[in-house]
Amino acid sequence: MKALKNLPSLAALIEELGKLPGIGPKSATNLAYHLVSQPADRLKRLADRVSQLPEKIRECSICGNLTEEDPCTFCADESREGSQICVVESALDLLSIERSGAYTGRYHVLGGVLSPLDGIGPAQLRIRELLERLRSGEIREIILATNPSVEGEATANYLKQTLSELDLNIALTRFARGLPVGGDLAFTDDETLAVAIQSRKKLDD
Amino acid sequence: MKALKNLPSLAALIEELGKLPGIGPKSATNLAYHLVSQPADRLKRLADRVSQLPEKIRECSICGNLTEEDPCTFCADESREGSQICVVESALDLLSIERSGAYTGRYHVLGGVLSPLDGIGPAQLRIRELLERLRSGEIREIILATNPSVEGEATANYLKQTLSELDLNIALTRFARGLPVGGDLAFTDDETLAVAIQSRKKLDD
Repeated sequence: MKALKNLPSLAALIEELGKLPGIGPKSATNLAYHLVSQPADRLKRLADRVSQLPEKIRECSICGNLTEEDPCTFCADESREGSQICVVESALDLLSIERSGAYTGRYHVLGGVLSPLDGIGPAQLRIRELLERLRSGEIREIILATNPSVEGEATANYLKQTLSELDLNIALTRFARGLPVGGDLAFTDDETLAVAIQSRKKLDD
Repeated sequence: MKALKNLPSLAALIEELGKLPGIGPKSATNLAYHLVSQPADRLKRLADRVSQLPEKIRECSICGNLTEEDPCTFCADESREGSQICVVESALDLLSIERSGAYTGRYHVLGGVLSPLDGIGPAQLRIRELLERLRSGEIREIILATNPSVEGEATANYLKQTLSELDLNIALTRFARGLPVGGDLAFTDDETLAVAIQSRKKLDD
Protein backbone atom coordinates (compact mmCIF):
# COMPACT_ATOMS: atom_id res chain seq x y z
CA MET A 1 0.00 0.00 0.00
CA LYS A 2 1.25 3.45 -0.99
CA ALA A 3 0.80 5.00 2.46
CA LEU A 4 3.35 2.50 3.79
CA LYS A 5 5.92 3.24 1.06
CA ASN A 6 8.37 4.75 3.52
CA LEU A 7 7.67 2.02 6.07
CA PRO A 8 8.85 -1.24 4.49
CA SER A 9 9.71 -2.83 7.85
CA LEU A 10 6.22 -2.05 9.17
CA ALA A 11 4.60 -3.28 5.94
CA ALA A 12 6.61 -6.51 6.23
CA LEU A 13 5.45 -7.00 9.82
CA ILE A 14 1.82 -6.37 8.81
CA GLU A 15 2.20 -9.01 6.11
CA GLU A 16 3.62 -11.56 8.58
CA LEU A 17 0.90 -10.85 11.16
CA GLY A 18 -1.78 -11.12 8.48
CA LYS A 19 -0.76 -14.73 7.83
CA LEU A 20 -1.70 -15.72 11.38
CA PRO A 21 -5.06 -17.48 11.86
CA GLY A 22 -7.97 -15.18 12.69
CA ILE A 23 -6.01 -12.00 11.92
CA GLY A 24 -7.25 -10.07 8.87
CA PRO A 25 -5.42 -7.22 7.11
CA LYS A 26 -6.99 -4.53 9.32
CA SER A 27 -6.24 -6.37 12.58
CA ALA A 28 -2.69 -6.99 11.36
CA THR A 29 -2.27 -3.25 10.73
CA ASN A 30 -3.69 -2.31 14.13
CA LEU A 31 -1.42 -4.82 15.84
CA ALA A 32 1.69 -3.61 13.98
CA TYR A 33 0.97 0.02 14.86
CA HIS A 34 0.38 -0.98 18.45
CA LEU A 35 3.68 -2.86 18.54
CA VAL A 36 5.64 0.06 17.11
CA SER A 37 4.41 2.17 20.02
CA GLN A 38 5.74 -0.28 22.60
CA PRO A 39 9.08 0.01 24.44
CA ALA A 40 12.04 -1.77 22.84
CA ASP A 41 12.53 -4.16 25.76
CA ARG A 42 8.94 -5.38 25.53
CA LEU A 43 9.30 -5.99 21.80
CA LYS A 44 12.58 -7.81 22.45
CA ARG A 45 10.87 -10.04 25.02
CA LEU A 46 7.99 -10.88 22.67
CA ALA A 47 10.41 -11.53 19.78
CA ASP A 48 12.61 -13.78 21.94
CA ARG A 49 9.60 -15.79 23.06
CA VAL A 50 8.58 -16.34 19.46
CA SER A 51 12.04 -17.20 18.11
CA GLN A 52 12.93 -19.49 21.02
CA LEU A 53 9.88 -21.74 20.57
CA PRO A 54 11.65 -24.31 18.36
CA GLU A 55 14.56 -24.88 20.74
CA LYS A 56 12.42 -25.05 23.88
CA ILE A 57 9.38 -27.03 22.81
CA ARG A 58 9.34 -30.61 21.53
CA GLU A 59 6.83 -33.44 21.20
CA CYS A 60 6.30 -35.88 24.07
CA SER A 61 7.86 -39.20 23.00
CA ILE A 62 4.85 -41.09 24.38
CA CYS A 63 1.74 -39.14 23.40
CA GLY A 64 2.97 -36.48 20.95
CA ASN A 65 1.75 -33.54 23.07
CA LEU A 66 3.84 -30.37 23.10
CA THR A 67 6.17 -30.20 26.09
CA GLU A 68 9.45 -28.80 27.36
CA GLU A 69 10.18 -31.94 29.43
CA ASP A 70 9.83 -35.44 28.08
CA PRO A 71 7.53 -37.19 28.95
CA CYS A 72 4.86 -34.50 29.20
CA THR A 73 2.77 -33.55 32.26
CA PHE A 74 -0.01 -35.98 31.36
CA CYS A 75 2.15 -39.00 30.60
CA ALA A 76 4.27 -38.41 33.73
CA ASP A 77 1.30 -37.91 36.07
CA GLU A 78 0.69 -41.26 37.84
CA SER A 79 -2.58 -40.03 39.28
CA ARG A 80 -4.26 -39.91 35.87
CA GLU A 81 -6.43 -42.81 34.75
CA GLY A 82 -4.10 -45.14 32.82
CA SER A 83 -6.80 -47.28 31.18
CA GLN A 84 -8.20 -44.48 28.99
CA ILE A 85 -6.61 -42.82 25.98
CA CYS A 86 -8.21 -39.80 24.37
CA VAL A 87 -7.02 -39.50 20.77
CA VAL A 88 -6.94 -35.91 19.49
CA GLU A 89 -5.80 -34.19 16.31
CA SER A 90 -3.58 -31.58 17.91
CA ALA A 91 -2.01 -30.37 21.14
CA LEU A 92 -4.38 -27.39 21.01
CA ASP A 93 -7.38 -29.76 21.02
CA LEU A 94 -5.82 -31.57 23.99
CA LEU A 95 -5.59 -28.24 25.82
CA SER A 96 -9.27 -27.50 25.09
CA ILE A 97 -10.33 -30.87 26.52
CA GLU A 98 -8.13 -30.40 29.56
CA ARG A 99 -9.67 -26.99 30.15
CA SER A 100 -13.16 -28.49 30.32
CA GLY A 101 -12.03 -30.40 33.42
CA ALA A 102 -14.17 -33.42 32.42
CA TYR A 103 -11.38 -35.83 31.50
CA THR A 104 -8.72 -37.38 33.73
CA GLY A 105 -7.21 -40.09 31.50
CA ARG A 106 -4.26 -40.14 29.11
CA TYR A 107 -3.96 -38.55 25.69
CA HIS A 108 -2.60 -39.36 22.26
CA VAL A 109 -1.96 -36.59 19.73
CA LEU A 110 -2.24 -37.72 16.10
CA GLY A 111 -0.60 -34.62 14.67
CA GLY A 112 -3.34 -34.05 12.09
CA VAL A 113 -6.15 -35.85 10.28
CA LEU A 114 -6.32 -38.09 7.25
CA SER A 115 -6.37 -35.89 4.18
CA PRO A 116 -5.44 -37.76 0.99
CA LEU A 117 -5.51 -34.57 -1.12
CA ASP A 118 -2.80 -33.08 1.10
CA GLY A 119 -0.82 -36.31 1.05
CA ILE A 120 -1.64 -37.15 4.66
CA GLY A 121 -2.32 -40.86 5.09
CA PRO A 122 -2.15 -43.10 8.19
CA ALA A 123 1.67 -43.19 8.00
CA GLN A 124 1.85 -39.41 8.40
CA LEU A 125 -0.12 -39.51 11.67
CA ARG A 126 1.05 -40.94 14.99
CA ILE A 127 -1.10 -44.07 14.56
CA ARG A 128 1.73 -46.60 14.77
CA GLU A 129 2.71 -45.04 18.12
CA LEU A 130 -0.89 -45.40 19.31
CA LEU A 131 -1.00 -49.09 18.43
CA GLU A 132 2.33 -49.50 20.23
CA ARG A 133 0.81 -48.08 23.40
CA LEU A 134 -1.97 -50.69 23.34
CA ARG A 135 0.53 -53.52 23.73
CA SER A 136 0.70 -53.02 27.50
CA GLY A 137 -2.84 -54.44 27.67
CA GLU A 138 -3.68 -51.76 30.23
CA ILE A 139 -5.99 -49.76 27.94
CA ARG A 140 -9.75 -50.34 28.37
CA GLU A 141 -11.15 -47.38 26.44
CA ILE A 142 -10.06 -45.27 23.52
CA ILE A 143 -11.94 -42.02 22.97
CA LEU A 144 -11.75 -40.96 19.34
CA ALA A 145 -11.81 -37.20 19.87
CA THR A 146 -11.03 -35.96 16.40
CA ASN A 147 -12.99 -32.88 15.31
CA PRO A 148 -16.59 -33.24 14.06
CA SER A 149 -15.46 -32.24 10.56
CA VAL A 150 -15.39 -34.38 7.40
CA GLU A 151 -11.69 -35.21 7.84
CA GLY A 152 -12.07 -35.72 11.59
CA GLU A 153 -14.93 -38.18 11.06
CA ALA A 154 -12.99 -40.03 8.37
CA THR A 155 -10.00 -40.31 10.68
CA ALA A 156 -12.17 -41.59 13.56
CA ASN A 157 -13.75 -44.16 11.21
CA TYR A 158 -10.33 -45.30 10.01
CA LEU A 159 -9.13 -45.72 13.61
CA LYS A 160 -12.34 -47.53 14.57
CA GLN A 161 -11.84 -50.00 11.73
CA THR A 162 -8.13 -50.50 12.40
CA LEU A 163 -8.65 -51.01 16.14
CA SER A 164 -11.68 -53.29 15.72
CA GLU A 165 -9.67 -55.59 13.45
CA LEU A 166 -7.10 -56.07 16.20
CA ASP A 167 -9.80 -57.60 18.41
CA LEU A 168 -8.34 -56.04 21.57
CA ASN A 169 -11.47 -55.89 23.73
CA ILE A 170 -11.12 -52.12 24.09
CA ALA A 171 -14.19 -49.89 24.15
CA LEU A 172 -14.14 -47.29 21.38
CA THR A 173 -16.06 -44.14 22.16
CA ARG A 174 -16.69 -40.79 20.55
CA PHE A 175 -17.82 -37.49 22.10
CA ALA A 176 -21.59 -36.93 22.11
CA ARG A 177 -22.92 -34.89 19.23
CA GLY A 178 -23.18 -31.74 21.21
CA LEU A 179 -20.36 -30.35 19.11
CA PRO A 180 -21.45 -28.32 16.10
CA VAL A 181 -20.88 -30.27 12.87
CA GLY A 182 -18.22 -28.69 10.71
CA GLY A 183 -16.93 -26.75 13.72
CA ASP A 184 -13.55 -26.73 15.36
CA LEU A 185 -12.85 -28.34 18.71
CA ALA A 186 -10.37 -25.67 19.74
CA PHE A 187 -13.03 -22.95 19.50
CA THR A 188 -15.77 -24.73 21.45
CA ASP A 189 -16.74 -23.23 24.80
CA ASP A 190 -15.74 -25.21 27.90
CA GLU A 191 -19.28 -26.17 29.03
CA THR A 192 -20.32 -27.58 25.66
CA LEU A 193 -17.09 -29.52 25.55
CA ALA A 194 -17.62 -30.87 29.08
CA VAL A 195 -21.15 -32.08 28.21
CA ALA A 196 -19.82 -33.72 25.07
CA ILE A 197 -17.12 -35.55 27.04
CA GLN A 198 -19.52 -36.75 29.74
CA SER A 199 -22.08 -38.13 27.29
CA ARG A 200 -19.61 -39.82 24.94
CA LYS A 201 -21.11 -42.93 23.27
CA LYS A 202 -19.80 -46.42 22.65
CA LEU A 203 -19.37 -47.17 18.95
CA ASP A 204 -21.37 -50.19 17.75
CA ASP A 205 -19.72 -52.40 15.16
CA MET B 1 -2.96 -22.92 33.91
CA LYS B 2 -2.10 -26.45 35.03
CA ALA B 3 -2.21 -27.98 31.53
CA LEU B 4 0.66 -25.65 30.57
CA LYS B 5 2.79 -26.56 33.60
CA ASN B 6 5.44 -28.23 31.46
CA LEU B 7 5.26 -25.46 28.86
CA PRO B 8 6.44 -22.27 30.61
CA SER B 9 7.82 -20.75 27.41
CA LEU B 10 4.49 -21.30 25.63
CA ALA B 11 2.56 -19.96 28.63
CA ALA B 12 4.79 -16.86 28.63
CA LEU B 13 4.15 -16.31 24.91
CA ILE B 14 0.38 -16.70 25.43
CA GLU B 15 0.59 -14.08 28.18
CA GLU B 16 2.47 -11.64 25.93
CA LEU B 17 0.07 -12.17 23.01
CA GLY B 18 -2.92 -11.72 25.32
CA LYS B 19 -1.75 -8.18 26.11
CA LEU B 20 -2.14 -7.12 22.47
CA PRO B 21 -5.29 -5.14 21.58
CA GLY B 22 -8.20 -7.25 20.35
CA ILE B 23 -6.59 -10.55 21.38
CA GLY B 24 -8.34 -12.38 24.22
CA PRO B 25 -6.95 -15.36 26.18
CA LYS B 26 -8.37 -17.94 23.77
CA SER B 27 -7.10 -16.16 20.65
CA ALA B 28 -3.70 -15.79 22.33
CA THR B 29 -3.61 -19.54 23.00
CA ASN B 30 -4.64 -20.41 19.44
CA LEU B 31 -1.99 -18.04 18.04
CA ALA B 32 0.75 -19.45 20.28
CA TYR B 33 -0.08 -23.05 19.30
CA HIS B 34 -0.14 -22.01 15.67
CA LEU B 35 3.26 -20.35 16.01
CA VAL B 36 4.83 -23.39 17.67
CA SER B 37 3.84 -25.44 14.61
CA GLN B 38 5.67 -23.08 12.25
CA PRO B 39 9.20 -23.61 10.86
CA ALA B 40 12.04 -22.02 12.84
CA ASP B 41 13.05 -19.67 10.01
CA ARG B 42 9.55 -18.21 9.78
CA LEU B 43 9.46 -17.63 13.54
CA LYS B 44 12.91 -16.01 13.34
CA ARG B 45 11.70 -13.70 10.57
CA LEU B 46 8.60 -12.66 12.52
CA ALA B 47 10.67 -12.17 15.70
CA ASP B 48 13.27 -10.06 13.86
CA ARG B 49 10.58 -7.87 12.37
CA VAL B 50 9.13 -7.24 15.81
CA SER B 51 12.42 -6.61 17.60
CA GLN B 52 13.85 -4.38 14.85
CA LEU B 53 10.90 -1.94 14.90
CA PRO B 54 12.54 0.52 17.33
CA GLU B 55 15.78 0.88 15.36
CA LYS B 56 14.06 1.19 11.98
CA ILE B 57 11.05 3.36 12.63
CA ARG B 58 11.06 6.93 13.91
CA GLU B 59 8.72 9.92 13.92
CA CYS B 60 8.73 12.36 11.02
CA SER B 61 10.34 15.59 12.29
CA ILE B 62 7.67 17.66 10.53
CA CYS B 63 4.34 15.91 11.07
CA GLY B 64 5.07 13.19 13.66
CA ASN B 65 3.95 10.34 11.39
CA LEU B 66 5.83 7.04 11.62
CA THR B 67 8.51 6.69 8.98
CA GLU B 68 11.82 5.08 8.13
CA GLU B 69 13.04 8.14 6.20
CA ASP B 70 12.73 11.68 7.51
CA PRO B 71 10.69 13.57 6.35
CA CYS B 72 7.90 11.05 5.74
CA THR B 73 6.18 10.23 2.42
CA PHE B 74 3.46 12.82 2.94
CA CYS B 75 5.70 15.70 3.98
CA ALA B 76 8.17 14.95 1.17
CA ASP B 77 5.52 14.62 -1.57
CA GLU B 78 5.36 17.99 -3.39
CA SER B 79 2.23 16.93 -5.27
CA ARG B 80 0.13 16.96 -2.10
CA GLU B 81 -1.97 20.00 -1.27
CA GLY B 82 0.21 22.19 0.96
CA SER B 83 -2.53 24.52 2.21
CA GLN B 84 -4.39 21.84 4.21
CA ILE B 85 -3.33 20.11 7.40
CA CYS B 86 -5.31 17.21 8.78
CA VAL B 87 -4.65 16.86 12.52
CA VAL B 88 -4.97 13.29 13.80
CA GLU B 89 -4.38 11.53 17.09
CA SER B 90 -2.13 8.77 15.79
CA ALA B 91 -0.23 7.44 12.80
CA LEU B 92 -2.79 4.63 12.62
CA ASP B 93 -5.60 7.19 12.21
CA LEU B 94 -3.53 8.87 9.47
CA LEU B 95 -3.28 5.53 7.68
CA SER B 96 -7.07 5.02 7.92
CA ILE B 97 -7.72 8.44 6.35
CA GLU B 98 -5.17 7.80 3.64
CA ARG B 99 -6.84 4.50 2.84
CA SER B 100 -10.17 6.22 2.22
CA GLY B 101 -8.51 8.03 -0.71
CA ALA B 102 -10.57 11.18 -0.01
CA TYR B 103 -7.77 13.42 1.28
CA THR B 104 -4.72 14.75 -0.56
CA GLY B 105 -3.35 17.39 1.83
CA ARG B 106 -0.78 17.26 4.62
CA TYR B 107 -1.03 15.68 8.06
CA HIS B 108 -0.08 16.41 11.62
CA VAL B 109 0.02 13.63 14.21
CA LEU B 110 -0.66 14.81 17.79
CA GLY B 111 0.57 11.62 19.42
CA GLY B 112 -2.51 11.26 21.61
CA VAL B 113 -5.43 13.25 23.03
CA LEU B 114 -5.86 15.52 26.01
CA SER B 115 -6.46 13.34 29.04
CA PRO B 116 -5.84 15.17 32.33
CA LEU B 117 -6.43 12.01 34.42
CA ASP B 118 -3.54 10.33 32.56
CA GLY B 119 -1.37 13.41 32.91
CA ILE B 120 -1.64 14.28 29.21
CA GLY B 121 -2.00 18.03 28.71
CA PRO B 122 -1.28 20.23 25.66
CA ALA B 123 2.49 20.08 26.34
CA GLN B 124 2.47 16.28 25.96
CA LEU B 125 0.96 16.49 22.46
CA ARG B 126 2.67 17.84 19.32
CA ILE B 127 0.68 21.10 19.46
CA ARG B 128 3.70 23.43 19.62
CA GLU B 129 5.00 21.78 16.43
CA LEU B 130 1.61 22.34 14.78
CA LEU B 131 1.63 26.08 15.63
CA GLU B 132 5.21 26.23 14.30
CA ARG B 133 4.02 24.90 10.93
CA LEU B 134 1.42 27.67 10.64
CA ARG B 135 4.15 30.33 10.57
CA SER B 136 4.77 29.78 6.86
CA GLY B 137 1.41 31.44 6.19
CA GLU B 138 0.73 28.79 3.58
CA ILE B 139 -1.98 26.96 5.52
CA ARG B 140 -5.62 27.79 4.61
CA GLU B 141 -7.46 24.94 6.33
CA ILE B 142 -6.91 22.79 9.37
CA ILE B 143 -9.06 19.68 9.66
CA LEU B 144 -9.41 18.64 13.29
CA ALA B 145 -9.65 14.89 12.76
CA THR B 146 -9.42 13.63 16.31
CA ASN B 147 -11.71 10.71 17.13
CA PRO B 148 -15.42 11.31 17.89
CA SER B 149 -14.84 10.25 21.51
CA VAL B 150 -15.04 12.41 24.65
CA GLU B 151 -11.27 13.00 24.71
CA GLY B 152 -11.11 13.51 20.95
CA GLU B 153 -13.86 16.15 21.07
CA ALA B 154 -12.17 17.89 24.02
CA THR B 155 -8.88 17.95 22.11
CA ALA B 156 -10.56 19.35 18.98
CA ASN B 157 -12.25 22.03 21.10
CA TYR B 158 -8.97 22.95 22.75
CA LEU B 159 -7.28 23.25 19.35
CA LYS B 160 -10.19 25.28 17.96
CA GLN B 161 -9.91 27.72 20.85
CA THR B 162 -6.12 27.99 20.65
CA LEU B 163 -6.11 28.48 16.89
CA SER B 164 -9.01 30.96 16.90
CA GLU B 165 -7.16 33.14 19.42
CA LEU B 166 -4.22 33.43 17.02
CA ASP B 167 -6.50 35.12 14.47
CA LEU B 168 -4.74 33.45 11.54
CA ASN B 169 -7.53 33.48 8.97
CA ILE B 170 -7.42 29.71 8.67
CA ALA B 171 -10.60 27.68 8.19
CA LEU B 172 -11.08 25.10 10.95
CA THR B 173 -13.10 22.07 9.93
CA ARG B 174 -14.15 18.79 11.44
CA PHE B 175 -15.31 15.58 9.75
CA ALA B 176 -19.06 15.25 9.25
CA ARG B 177 -20.91 13.32 11.89
CA GLY B 178 -21.05 10.18 9.89
CA LEU B 179 -18.66 8.66 12.37
CA PRO B 180 -20.30 6.69 15.18
CA VAL B 181 -20.12 8.62 18.46
CA GLY B 182 -17.83 6.92 20.95
CA GLY B 183 -16.27 4.89 18.13
CA ASP B 184 -12.69 4.67 16.97
CA LEU B 185 -11.40 6.21 13.76
CA ALA B 186 -9.00 3.37 13.07
CA PHE B 187 -11.83 0.84 12.95
CA THR B 188 -14.15 2.78 10.65
CA ASP B 189 -14.76 1.33 7.19
CA ASP B 190 -13.23 3.20 4.25
CA GLU B 191 -16.52 4.34 2.65
CA THR B 192 -17.92 5.86 5.84
CA LEU B 193 -14.62 7.59 6.40
CA ALA B 194 -14.57 8.94 2.83
CA VAL B 195 -18.10 10.37 3.19
CA ALA B 196 -17.10 11.94 6.51
CA ILE B 197 -14.04 13.57 4.93
CA GLN B 198 -15.96 14.91 1.94
CA SER B 199 -18.75 16.48 4.02
CA ARG B 200 -16.51 17.99 6.71
CA LYS B 201 -17.98 21.21 8.16
CA LYS B 202 -16.50 24.59 8.93
CA LEU B 203 -16.51 25.35 12.66
CA ASP B 204 -18.41 28.51 13.57
CA ASP B 205 -16.94 30.65 16.32
